[in-house]
Amino acid sequence: MLLDKYNEVRALTEKICSPLKTEDYVVQPIVDVSPPKWHLGHTAWFFETFVLKPHLQGYVEFDINYNFVFNSYYETIGNRVIRTDRGNLSRPTVDDIYQYRKYVDEHMRFLLQNEANDEKLIELVVLGLNHEQQHQELLYTDIKYILGHNPLFPAYDDTQFSTTGSNEVSGMIGIPEGIYQIGFEGEGFSFDNESGRHKVFLNSYKISTALVTNREYLEFVQDSGYQNFKHWHLEGWEWVKHNQIKAPLYWYFINDEWHQYTLNGLKPLDMEAPLCHISYYEAHAFADWLGKRLPTEFEWEAASGKFNWGKRWEWTESAYLPYPGYKKEEGALGEYNGKFMVNQMVLRGASEVTSPGHSRASYRNFFHPYLRWQYTGIRLAE
Amino acid sequence: MLLDKYNEVRALTEKICSPLKTEDYVVQPIVDVSPPKWHLGHTAWFFETFVLKPHLQGYVEFDINYNFVFNSYYETIGNRVIRTDRGNLSRPTVDDIYQYRKYVDEHMRFLLQNEANDEKLIELVVLGLNHEQQHQELLYTDIKYILGHNPLFPAYDDTQFSTTGSNEVSGMIGIPEGIYQIGFEGEGFSFDNESGRHKVFLNSYKISTALVTNREYLEFVQDSGYQNFKHWHLEGWEWVKHNQIKAPLYWYFINDEWHQYTLNGLKPLDMEAPLCHISYYEAHAFADWLGKRLPTEFEWEAASGKFNWGKRWEWTESAYLPYPGYKKEEGALGEYNGKFMVNQMVLRGASEVTSPGHSRASYRNFFHPYLRWQYTGIRLAE
Amino acid sequence: MLLDKYNEVRALTEKICSPLKTEDYVVQPIVDVSPPKWHLGHTAWFFETFVLKPHLQGYVEFDINYNFVFNSYYETIGNRVIRTDRGNLSRPTVDDIYQYRKYVDEHMRFLLQNEANDEKLIELVVLGLNHEQQHQELLYTDIKYILGHNPLFPAYDDTQFSTTGSNEVSGMIGIPEGIYQIGFEGEGFSFDNESGRHKVFLNSYKISTALVTNREYLEFVQDSGYQNFKHWHLEGWEWVKHNQIKAPLYWYFINDEWHQYTLNGLKPLDMEAPLCHISYYEAHAFADWLGKRLPTEFEWEAASGKFNWGKRWEWTESAYLPYPGYKKEEGALGEYNGKFMVNQMVLRGASEVTSPGHSRASYRNFFHPYLRWQYTGIRLAE
Amino acid sequence: MLLDKYNEVRALTEKICSPLKTEDYVVQPIVDVSPPKWHLGHTAWFFETFVLKPHLQGYVEFDINYNFVFNSYYETIGNRVIRTDRGNLSRPTVDDIYQYRKYVDEHMRFLLQNEANDEKLIELVVLGLNHEQQHQELLYTDIKYILGHNPLFPAYDDTQFSTTGSNEVSGMIGIPEGIYQIGFEGEGFSFDNESGRHKVFLNSYKISTALVTNREYLEFVQDSGYQNFKHWHLEGWEWVKHNQIKAPLYWYFINDEWHQYTLNGLKPLDMEAPLCHISYYEAHAFADWLGKRLPTEFEWEAASGKFNWGKRWEWTESAYLPYPGYKKEEGALGEYNGKFMVNQMVLRGASEVTSPGHSRASYRNFFHPYLRWQYTGIRLAE
Repeated sequence: MLLDKYNEVRALTEKICSPLKTEDYVVQPIVDVSPPKWHLGHTAWFFETFVLKPHLQGYVEFDINYNFVFNSYYETIGNRVIRTDRGNLSRPTVDDIYQYRKYVDEHMRFLLQNEANDEKLIELVVLGLNHEQQHQELLYTDIKYILGHNPLFPAYDDTQFSTTGSNEVSGMIGIPEGIYQIGFEGEGFSFDNESGRHKVFLNSYKISTALVTNREYLEFVQDSGYQNFKHWHLEGWEWVKHNQIKAPLYWYFINDEWHQYTLNGLKPLDMEAPLCHISYYEAHAFADWLGKRLPTEFEWEAASGKFNWGKRWEWTESAYLPYPGYKKEEGALGEYNGKFMVNQMVLRGASEVTSPGHSRASYRNFFHPYLRWQYTGIRLAE
Repeated sequence: MLLDKYNEVRALTEKICSPLKTEDYVVQPIVDVSPPKWHLGHTAWFFETFVLKPHLQGYVEFDINYNFVFNSYYETIGNRVIRTDRGNLSRPTVDDIYQYRKYVDEHMRFLLQNEANDEKLIELVVLGLNHEQQHQELLYTDIKYILGHNPLFPAYDDTQFSTTGSNEVSGMIGIPEGIYQIGFEGEGFSFDNESGRHKVFLNSYKISTALVTNREYLEFVQDSGYQNFKHWHLEGWEWVKHNQIKAPLYWYFINDEWHQYTLNGLKPLDMEAPLCHISYYEAHAFADWLGKRLPTEFEWEAASGKFNWGKRWEWTESAYLPYPGYKKEEGALGEYNGKFMVNQMVLRGASEVTSPGHSRASYRNFFHPYLRWQYTGIRLAE
Repeated sequence: MLLDKYNEVRALTEKICSPLKTEDYVVQPIVDVSPPKWHLGHTAWFFETFVLKPHLQGYVEFDINYNFVFNSYYETIGNRVIRTDRGNLSRPTVDDIYQYRKYVDEHMRFLLQNEANDEKLIELVVLGLNHEQQHQELLYTDIKYILGHNPLFPAYDDTQFSTTGSNEVSGMIGIPEGIYQIGFEGEGFSFDNESGRHKVFLNSYKISTALVTNREYLEFVQDSGYQNFKHWHLEGWEWVKHNQIKAPLYWYFINDEWHQYTLNGLKPLDMEAPLCHISYYEAHAFADWLGKRLPTEFEWEAASGKFNWGKRWEWTESAYLPYPGYKKEEGALGEYNGKFMVNQMVLRGASEVTSPGHSRASYRNFFHPYLRWQYTGIRLAE
Repeated sequence: MLLDKYNEVRALTEKICSPLKTEDYVVQPIVDVSPPKWHLGHTAWFFETFVLKPHLQGYVEFDINYNFVFNSYYETIGNRVIRTDRGNLSRPTVDDIYQYRKYVDEHMRFLLQNEANDEKLIELVVLGLNHEQQHQELLYTDIKYILGHNPLFPAYDDTQFSTTGSNEVSGMIGIPEGIYQIGFEGEGFSFDNESGRHKVFLNSYKISTALVTNREYLEFVQDSGYQNFKHWHLEGWEWVKHNQIKAPLYWYFINDEWHQYTLNGLKPLDMEAPLCHISYYEAHAFADWLGKRLPTEFEWEAASGKFNWGKRWEWTESAYLPYPGYKKEEGALGEYNGKFMVNQMVLRGASEVTSPGHSRASYRNFFHPYLRWQYTGIRLAE
């Protein structure tokens, strides 16, 4: 059954890439975006490095140079390619990398068939699959950035990513004061950053059932929201001025009409769809403009059973910090989450490009406040 | 009585500057440090702008250009001098600025004598005095930076700033699980960021009675703490490598012996004194190396009656975020705190250069994680 | 006959690219290097813009967006893609661009067959072919940079680019004082920057018959040439320190032996081959170390009939400035050369990757002093 | 008599500084400007280092740390203070430096009285005095920058620096084709960069008797000269756009009228005065707009007896390169000129703030093309 899951997840990664041209696999327009071929190679490298090499006797690496090329930020493993250099590497080619994946898959299948009961192995493979699902989401967002910043505005494909009509009826739910249990609980997989279920005291609060829509955000834009410093954090305001930000990412004002680039190409702005591609700074300023605020991650989790979510990753007012009793793992896997716990904000929920079954109410995503290329949105609190 | 306090605080600012040469008032070696003459002018400008102009009928500004020069970050008030430019301004001269202070003081005294019962006025003056006390601390730290980065290593003066023997006996205090009240309570002055007393649930924890000493930190240095990425946040590690950090600020290894620059000049490192001038990154890495951690700001406040503090500003594991129910003030004073609530870490306590009576258990200081020029230290938790 | 020349030049461009993988066409590791697919598109765009659109009635552009993508620095024509962005564009694909070339070629052939006697047209086509030959050379140097900075060090192909044994017998030729004629003379094509034949007075001088070899330059490296500021221009010395330059580009010290990356892959350093891939700063410092100097471009041209050249572009001691009576052309083609006449140094000669028949004694190439990715070498004077 | 000259030159330096406030001596608003106190110390350091230490037996340095502080770019002498750091140093104080000058002067006077016939000594002292005169000019231009970029626009003093009416009658002089002798000839002092008198062949040309006036340049500004790329070098155009240049340095458009900051304060633009404070890029673009050009430095020198000059340093079309037979001196003094001979343009003439008797027809000044804080002007040729 783990083998089935393995096959399914690995196949999805390649399916996501199937509409791409070879050239689309190669480029890296900004440092936060990785070339799709790097994602393909890196997720194979993860299984090779953490599963095959330590657990499959006699395993021979596909290419010893690949550790240098496909390592991401695991300083324990070896010298990594400087992140900004990923887009400069034409080799290994896309074909080479698909060969690499095939080679790793064959050995993984052999291992999973023969060591199906090794607990430690299963744990590592499950981690590797969750890791690959994270990269599936990044593949979508990175591909969108690559195509959406090309002057020809090519579409990724024709399938519907539209979220029109998918939003909830607007309204506020009241949550009473009290002690709430926060953090992962249960049987399945979870990351170390969401473990350590613990009590948090919350004051009474209200949280919105619906996500903010493009229409609502457009009012902020039209009310000179980007020109009025009083709604912004100081560094958010400097970010706005320095980058001349005037609207969410992928919004274009063409022939007197607002458009947005989508994976289906450039389209008129869908007013009822949930807003996305805004930074934490913008989320905060919008809430301030309305006289409201963002929920904390604890408020979000405590109320998460009471509204539908999963369309947008939702910015919270919480910085990404360790839970009480947080303990990072030994070795290279200990670098997975803990080293990022400074200067990032927590997002909760999931988005339309999150892999099926990948998220949960206790899941903690996190990004720097200025980043917008994920499907980030806003749920209000007060 | 407020007049007495006014006279006392204003006089202390000038006393702090009295050992300086005229040239020392002018320079700005890094963007975070302001020239002492700017602090002198800015604290006068604060009273002129927020007290005298709105409350003293017929008040005539000392010089209308000063608003442009001495504004800091109050975007509501007018175009500010770009912060990096402060060290480029030779005029107004130091004498001009002392004249400005004298002019403002004369009008303030007149106002305080004649409007001694105006509640709103009193509130503003008290805020101005607390604001000036914050700048008194910055004056010490900025002067230390200016003199401590001069190749001649001039002393500020000969008075003792030594903290030898001042540290507590080392030990851990246990604090039980429970709900604690956090935030300012009482009659006196407090800032908006510490208001909104509220309940926080804390797990049981231990917190150290003593601050980390130079001796203890030197062991970390000698155990290659600055060469081992596994103790560091990713961005802390990049900060170490990019800036080639090898020890706390002001530590110099000369003739096989560690020295530190102090306000009394360059001295051999005082092993028993509490460590200071480290970044949050270093504080975190040191705690990780010891298998411990920093306390959260809530843990610190809940335990703060059980140990002596006030020698070092203490880094906490908490990001600087609004308390539940935080409401920023209307108008320019609303910019005082709220706009900084992103990407900074909270410090608690006070330091040897904090003005008398300025801090309290609920006081929240905050700096970016990479900053070291304040008297920052470490208290451990577990 | 111009049609034959057209076909020949255009075919050579594609032949140069034939060993590439699709991915190699896309990347731009540094701002000075352009992706091969951009060179392919830009040279087609040149003919479309300056020949087909003004001279072929009824011509329909292949794609109106291509002007935006393939323009280089012709500000008169339209908004150009910021040069650093070229490596971010995955579309148009390599196939698209070959289609574009085919489309342009078909129309060019039609035009050349039907308007074979139009003087203005012929002039423009000849300029376009010389322009394309310049890009052929850049294709080689850019491909070398792309492959030579890949951690897998792939070879471009197996053909011999070796220059072993090709150097002349070392020796100095004396040239007497006198007035020399400098600049292009004759019937064929020349660029505007070499026109305006004029008299220059030269003192007597000596110039070397041979180019500096790798062996000779290695002595400079081993004599701490890169550690001794006295041989360097101030800004050359800052360049050395800032970039930690220790040897020519593509030199690697591996297993106690010097290697160089070549288009055939990584090879032991060929000691007798002419040195290449050095900056002007290095050329100057090497000459200074030997107590010699580089020739001026006038000395070079006056003596150019007396030695064999064509293996390396040779740095001269001359800044790139207009000849007396220099007149830039009207319109967009006037931007071809004149706008670069500041802060660049002149190179004379040609290199092993210069297209056949492209250079001549009066040809003036030019680069910024810090650039090394061309086949730059040294001829000494005194 | 050399002693008299010494006293006169040294006194002039201090006279130039006499209108300054202490604070004005300290700041460094841009990297190209040095704090006046640094000029004062550096010119004393020059005599201490190159004259007193090697030639006055038993001489004891005033302060051994001063070599570190006042060295400029003489890498042979010791570690220099990074140039950008000069404005960060509050110590030594202005008083300290005047004491330093007094100490050096006393020893210099003793030496000059006792070793009046030592040829080598005389040569060094004369060099030191010419060096100090160069810094006198820099003092004026740096002081102007410091005060002219202060929002209070303080005047340096009330003496007249006006050049109204000082310009020549406009007209062109024709110079015939022929061989001209270029470079210093005669008995007095000259720098190594102007030595090596040599023959240059010049085509016939015309050169203007008058300098370009503010009125003439204003026409270029009003004819959108700063918006039309076709007159500009590519890197000049990028400089204009990046720095949003719209007029010469110190020009301000206030209340619908053009003003200029002068050493007497802010004044309406003097239309008939010679233009100054423009970059080479602007000089070139202006000439191009008029269909003319700048003279080469050889054309300038060959014609220099035929017009009055000395009001503005005049940009030429010549890059700063060694004359034939240029030989830099041995030791630290060899760094004086030669190391700057790349990427700078030659200026000829002198300006209203050049010290009396300091310039001559063969004098070669040089600056990077983007610099404007000198009294740079334009003489046209064709």
